[in-house]
Amino acid sequence: MHFASDNTSPVPPQVLEALIEANHGYAMPYGNDVATTDLRDTIRATFEAPEAEVYLVATGTAANALALACLCPPWATVYCHRNAHVEEDECGAPEFYTGGAKLTLLDGADAKIDPAALDRAIGFTARAGVHNVQRGAVSITNATEAGAVYSPAEVAAIAAVARAAGLPVHMDGARFANAVVAAGCTPAEMTWKAGVDVLTFGGTKNGLMGVEAVVLFDPARAWEFELRRKRGGHLFSKHRYLTAQMAAYLDDDLWLKLAERANAAAARLSAGLAAIPGASLLHPTQANAVFAAWPREGHRRAQKAGAQYYLWPMDQSLEGAGDVPLSARLVCSWCTTDDEVDAFLALIDGGPEPDPVHVPG
Amino acid sequence: MHFASDNTSPVPPQVLEALIEANHGYAMPYGNDVATTDLRDTIRATFEAPEAEVYLVATGTAANALALACLCPPWATVYCHRNAHVEEDECGAPEFYTGGAKLTLLDGADAKIDPAALDRAIGFTARAGVHNVQRGAVSITNATEAGAVYSPAEVAAIAAVARAAGLPVHMDGARFANAVVAAGCTPAEMTWKAGVDVLTFGGTKNGLMGVEAVVLFDPARAWEFELRRKRGGHLFSKHRYLTAQMAAYLDDDLWLKLAERANAAAARLSAGLAAIPGASLLHPTQANAVFAAWPREGHRRAQKAGAQYYLWPMDQSLEGAGDVPLSARLVCSWCTTDDEVDAFLALIDGGPEPDPVHVPG
Amino acid sequence: MHFASDNTSPVPPQVLEALIEANHGYAMPYGNDVATTDLRDTIRATFEAPEAEVYLVATGTAANALALACLCPPWATVYCHRNAHVEEDECGAPEFYTGGAKLTLLDGADAKIDPAALDRAIGFTARAGVHNVQRGAVSITNATEAGAVYSPAEVAAIAAVARAAGLPVHMDGARFANAVVAAGCTPAEMTWKAGVDVLTFGGTKNGLMGVEAVVLFDPARAWEFELRRKRGGHLFSKHRYLTAQMAAYLDDDLWLKLAERANAAAARLSAGLAAIPGASLLHPTQANAVFAAWPREGHRRAQKAGAQYYLWPMDQSLEGAGDVPLSARLVCSWCTTDDEVDAFLALIDGGPEPDPVHVPG
Amino acid sequence: MHFASDNTSPVPPQVLEALIEANHGYAMPYGNDVATTDLRDTIRATFEAPEAEVYLVATGTAANALALACLCPPWATVYCHRNAHVEEDECGAPEFYTGGAKLTLLDGADAKIDPAALDRAIGFTARAGVHNVQRGAVSITNATEAGAVYSPAEVAAIAAVARAAGLPVHMDGARFANAVVAAGCTPAEMTWKAGVDVLTFGGTKNGLMGVEAVVLFDPARAWEFELRRKRGGHLFSKHRYLTAQMAAYLDDDLWLKLAERANAAAARLSAGLAAIPGASLLHPTQANAVFAAWPREGHRRAQKAGAQYYLWPMDQSLEGAGDVPLSARLVCSWCTTDDEVDAFLALIDGGPEPDPVHVPG
Repeated sequence: MHFASDNTSPVPPQVLEALIEANHGYAMPYGNDVATTDLRDTIRATFEAPEAEVYLVATGTAANALALACLCPPWATVYCHRNAHVEEDECGAPEFYTGGAKLTLLDGADAKIDPAALDRAIGFTARAGVHNVQRGAVSITNATEAGAVYSPAEVAAIAAVARAAGLPVHMDGARFANAVVAAGCTPAEMTWKAGVDVLTFGGTKNGLMGVEAVVLFDPARAWEFELRRKRGGHLFSKHRYLTAQMAAYLDDDLWLKLAERANAAAARLSAGLAAIPGASLLHPTQANAVFAAWPREGHRRAQKAGAQYYLWPMDQSLEGAGDVPLSARLVCSWCTTDDEVDAFLALIDGGPEPDPVHVPG
Repeated sequence: MHFASDNTSPVPPQVLEALIEANHGYAMPYGNDVATTDLRDTIRATFEAPEAEVYLVATGTAANALALACLCPPWATVYCHRNAHVEEDECGAPEFYTGGAKLTLLDGADAKIDPAALDRAIGFTARAGVHNVQRGAVSITNATEAGAVYSPAEVAAIAAVARAAGLPVHMDGARFANAVVAAGCTPAEMTWKAGVDVLTFGGTKNGLMGVEAVVLFDPARAWEFELRRKRGGHLFSKHRYLTAQMAAYLDDDLWLKLAERANAAAARLSAGLAAIPGASLLHPTQANAVFAAWPREGHRRAQKAGAQYYLWPMDQSLEGAGDVPLSARLVCSWCTTDDEVDAFLALIDGGPEPDPVHVPG
Repeated sequence: MHFASDNTSPVPPQVLEALIEANHGYAMPYGNDVATTDLRDTIRATFEAPEAEVYLVATGTAANALALACLCPPWATVYCHRNAHVEEDECGAPEFYTGGAKLTLLDGADAKIDPAALDRAIGFTARAGVHNVQRGAVSITNATEAGAVYSPAEVAAIAAVARAAGLPVHMDGARFANAVVAAGCTPAEMTWKAGVDVLTFGGTKNGLMGVEAVVLFDPARAWEFELRRKRGGHLFSKHRYLTAQMAAYLDDDLWLKLAERANAAAARLSAGLAAIPGASLLHPTQANAVFAAWPREGHRRAQKAGAQYYLWPMDQSLEGAGDVPLSARLVCSWCTTDDEVDAFLALIDGGPEPDPVHVPG
Repeated sequence: MHFASDNTSPVPPQVLEALIEANHGYAMPYGNDVATTDLRDTIRATFEAPEAEVYLVATGTAANALALACLCPPWATVYCHRNAHVEEDECGAPEFYTGGAKLTLLDGADAKIDPAALDRAIGFTARAGVHNVQRGAVSITNATEAGAVYSPAEVAAIAAVARAAGLPVHMDGARFANAVVAAGCTPAEMTWKAGVDVLTFGGTKNGLMGVEAVVLFDPARAWEFELRRKRGGHLFSKHRYLTAQMAAYLDDDLWLKLAERANAAAARLSAGLAAIPGASLLHPTQANAVFAAWPREGHRRAQKAGAQYYLWPMDQSLEGAGDVPLSARLVCSWCTTDDEVDAFLALIDGGPEPDPVHVPG
């Protein structure tokens, strides 16, 4: 019953096999090997974007911060949701990589930016000219930090506001696979066709050891990206091991299949929770994360049984009198099983303690 | 015949096995798993440094730049050799991570800093007080970029000069294993016992996919290091896969055995070249890299046969008349075979083209 | 009728006389002259702070950003009011000088930070440890950007919250003189006795050409400040001309007398506006700035007569039908005359156009 | 006998008069006043550069660092002489403002870059592509830190090398007036006609309190410069006082007349020293600084008589036995008198102590 994060999961066997396969003989370093060239073509084909430039890094924070640094000068601001990963969970990496840009925090339900709020914020920026930080870039997360999914139309609505102000659009796709599966669209429809300029195409949370691709649909900033990546210490010498993982991820639509499993597990968990008396959903469950509240007693039973998840926000306490509802974040991954979900639901629902659950590896 | 770099090699089977082993069940992310706690203790034991703090990152550039940023404020300078990796091969990562510190470039044979040159440079620094960049830190590379090895006594001589000026010492140990093997000393003797404050303990060039440990012998800056690592995008969520590799590396002295093989191959190559008429060594071969010059015809034969290595410096040309000597860098790795070495030597020596060589994987 | 800003005013004759006086013979540069040494003692005495270190710079943005850079590391956040000058009017100078710190924006009436809001924001910061930007420093502006004044007790309340979290406190005193005069307290009571660690002691808006003193009540960061000042290009070689101005400012309490005049003019203006039918004050008038709203027709008359001030916020328009109230900021300075104020009030009140007003110089 | 630096001098009466004149009535801040508009046109006319953009700041370090930040990205290097002010006397301001660029140090007699050395250094840069810091910009100082002057032809030779590599050229003209006077050319011939893109047009060392103009001959980066200036805290609110000084400086060729006086004093001093037995010049005296060596006894007499100048380099000592020559830097300014020079020469020459010298103010 591990719902702490999708980053606690193992990787699927295909990824290990790809590493084993890649581990033969010598390979040119730094992405200058044939496999990496092929992979870049595969990603271009996946996104129907023959002009795009593609680079691999190992963490989502690196991917996001490097991408934003190419889009937003030091004296400008990145418009993002108040709960965006770039704001809340990267220890200021965007500020570091941009050389001191700001983040302008926007509201919107389910961690989705409200286009009208974006428009107002852009309008408010730099009204005193040189005295103010300037307009820089827009960053959206899909799937969002609240487990919701922007549809391609919703992405396009944000991008239209950005475009009207001449601003580029970045998408943090740490859970891009989950979003695409949920929206039932193509990768292209979710990105450049909707106005996205740069995508962080996540692999790590969806089954890789640590690989993210940055897809620059407009290649104008490609060389700058390469220099920033190297200068940031994110250019891997033994690049083949990043390449192999990402190639396995794309092969035979593995990335979509993994996300389908995670999303399905979350849907099952969400439906189950919604049916428990006293429990309620805090956001619609559209991807692989469930945000719900239920009485404190249920949390105590879950913790006692070893279930892992975060109270959300984190400053709630299991201690204290009164069976008030506490809210939680529950994240499913490609390897979450129906048994895990059902055992967890049984705990929350107050039934007897379940049998130990087998976890695949 | 792959001598381009030690980063073109595959990883040994133990590393793959460790990844497979680590890939079971859920694991807490970001280094909060039990295996990482154990690994940190193992590294402390390896270095006889129970107080040390240890962190993993995936690239040497990240390790070096993060370490230096903890030692050198933005308004100070890092003393390093003119040919140091931090100066020549990191696209300014130290400048980026420190927030704009300088690098003061020192001379010295075989890419080793001459202690007297260091002393002079320190004495020259900040003579005009606030108008000048201040004294920051000293960084040495062991084994050096010229394939030489500082002995513990030589490290101590550098550190003594640094200490006298109140400066901390960083060691870029991208090839630390090769240096320790060559010097026949303990890891502790090569580092904190000789006055090193922070070590980049390299794994990547010596057989890992991409793992370096930063060892802070003085833990005072540990929390700052953690923040800088996260902010730089170098904190891995699925940290277990870094841990597993480094644990395998240390297990049963694998790291030393791999380096012994690389060093031995380089010694064989070096001795063979020295015996070829018209060839000469440019630096003593003490670790796993050979720097030598031989007539252009030999280079042409080698290139035609598919041998991979760099002319060093890179701006020499195989074209042109006259059989002048061209200099080259040849790097051996844990998987370089005697057959490869011998085949290469035969080529340089002008014998007939060798049979294809089997490369282990 | 110039109410655009206190930075549009000339300097009083004492300041010019001081420059003339200082312009004799040679003087050691960079603040190493006797006059600067004396001035530093004068400022220490003014603040009853014999241990304080004092430095001069020429702009308020430089003073604030350099001070904050000494208090807040790159990976932390500065808590300030949403309307603080450091947030709204410095084009990201704090982010630049700190190396990429954040600003956490707080609410509170009259541009004063609500201590409870500060406490909540601090509590919310860094709950996920290394993943988050850390707690850095607190910055308050006195007098505030809304023309209000923190009393020493109010400063102490903010500082108590900061202290409880181990955070230092910076005061942007671009209009410090106006605040001290309004509060009827000593400089010491308004600063270190209330818990302020570093003060930007403004001279420019209150009658100097361009001089601000940074007063470090805790001298521990003095050398770092000096290095940052030099590195930022803010160390003046012909420092005597900054010193002379600031010395004249402090001599015979000129700084307080200038602020008294500005505050009195604002009080007269504020009272006059409050008495005009259809006009209303938006903030209490406690220092030298008046924020008020009155019908559009009054604005049109004022503009036609050449009155200078800003609609506040700036995106309102004098055009359009309907005599709706528009809000404005009116700033008085040491040289604002009663005649100017009265002429302006008469305009707003709808009387006949006034005679031209004599402006002192 | 003040030869410590040209920044120890007072300002000429015209500058004070201009300040007095400017101190009437209200003026729009931040350079939005009529006088600043006029001044910008005057500078454009002075440089025969109608398209140029012109900005004022108060220190040479700010002017240089802001200019270089507009020319050189963070991942590139600035080619400059080893003794350039940007390298030796700005505490890393270029590194700070560029966001961590390098400075590549070049040799050349009299602190002038040798074009062949520049060409070699450019050729050496970035040979390993993304692994290396890239080519950024070239910065030359005229007059140089060794008191020499690049002729327009010499500037053009440097600029030709830069142009061939696609690099922009910055001139640090802290002593631009002295250089123009020495070369007998027009400002245009010394700058854009010779290939200079951005000039730091110094006023401070040549008679202003603290004003430098940055002249962007190519206005493409003007808005970026404005943002960097504001963000660096170098945009003055009461801008009229910078403007007034610079306008006085240009009026009736005051700037050239002041430089002529300083250069003439240096020529007198230089000739006098050269004629003293045991004394020798270290660099040709072409502008307002003299670099010479003479026996220690002469230094002792000079110091005892209160003469002010720096031993150069600074680590020489007046103490010790033996009358060895010590080298010194002697800087003349617009207010250096023949009497001062002659009195100093008499001291060095071993004559009797001179009468006190009248210093103008």
